[in-house]
Amino acid sequence: MSDSEHDWLRPEEEHETETVIDVGTAQSNPEVADAVAKIAALRQSIDNVDTAIVSLLAERFKYTSQVGVLKAREGFAPADYKREDYQIERLHRIAVDAGLDPDIAEMYREFVVTEAKRRHKRIAENGVDPGALDVFA
Amino acid sequence: MSDSEHDWLRPEEEHETETVIDVGTAQSNPEVADAVAKIAALRQSIDNVDTAIVSLLAERFKYTSQVGVLKAREGFAPADYKREDYQIERLHRIAVDAGLDPDIAEMYREFVVTEAKRRHKRIAENGVDPGALDVFA
Repeated sequence: MSDSEHDWLRPEEEHETETVIDVGTAQSNPEVADAVAKIAALRQSIDNVDTAIVSLLAERFKYTSQVGVLKAREGFAPADYKREDYQIERLHRIAVDAGLDPDIAEMYREFVVTEAKRRHKRIAENGVDPGALDVFA
Repeated sequence: MSDSEHDWLRPEEEHETETVIDVGTAQSNPEVADAVAKIAALRQSIDNVDTAIVSLLAERFKYTSQVGVLKAREGFAPADYKREDYQIERLHRIAVDAGLDPDIAEMYREFVVTEAKRRHKRIAENGVDPGALDVFA
C-alpha cells in the first residue's frame, strides 16, 4: 500500500522515515529475523491488550450513560467534584500498584472525561437531552 | 474537603455547579435515595473497569518499551505505517464488534501513541536514547 493512499490517517507524520517490520523484512534481511520475530510476538500481545481495553471501554461508556440518565432524571448537576477527586486519587494509587506512571493514569482519566464531554456536546447540538450522557459519573 | 484545596486539579471546571452524590445526599433527600443507590452501584462497576484498564495499560507500555529497545538495537526507524494502518483498521473493527463508537477507539489509539511520543521526548531531553521507547510499536 502506497503512502499516498493513507496520508489522511497521519497528517503530522507523513514526512517521517519508517521501517516496515514484517515477514518480508526478515526474508530480505536474515540477520534481523530474530528481532523481527520478537517484535511480531510483542505486537500480538499489544493487540490482545488493545482488544481487552476496547471491550472494557465499551462497557465503561454503557455505565456512564446510565449514570447520566439517572442524574438527568433526578435533576442532579453533571459535576460531582468529590467523586472526581476520589477517582483521581484512586487511579493514582492503582497505577503505582500496577507499575504504571501515574501521569498516564491521569491522562487516561482525562481521555474518558474529554470524550464524554465531546459526546455530551454533540448530543446537545442534535437536540437530545445532554444530561443523557454524563461527563463525570 | 473544600473546593479551594483542589482547584489545581480542575482549572477549567471550577465554576461549574455540582451535585455531590453520596450517602449524605440520600440521607438528606430520601426521595432520591433509590437513584443514589443505583449511581453508587454503577460507579463501583466503573471503578472496576478502570482498575482493569490501568492494569492493562501498565502491561501495554511494558510491551511497547520492549519493541522500542529491539528497534533501537537493530537500527529500525520508530515509524512503521503499515503496522499503524493495521492497528487503525483492527481497532475500528473490534470497536464495532464491542458496541463502542469507533471514534473512541481511534482516540484511545491516539492517546497511547501521544503518550509514547511524550515519553520519547522526555527521554531524549534527559540524554537517554529515545529509541528505547517506541511511538508506533
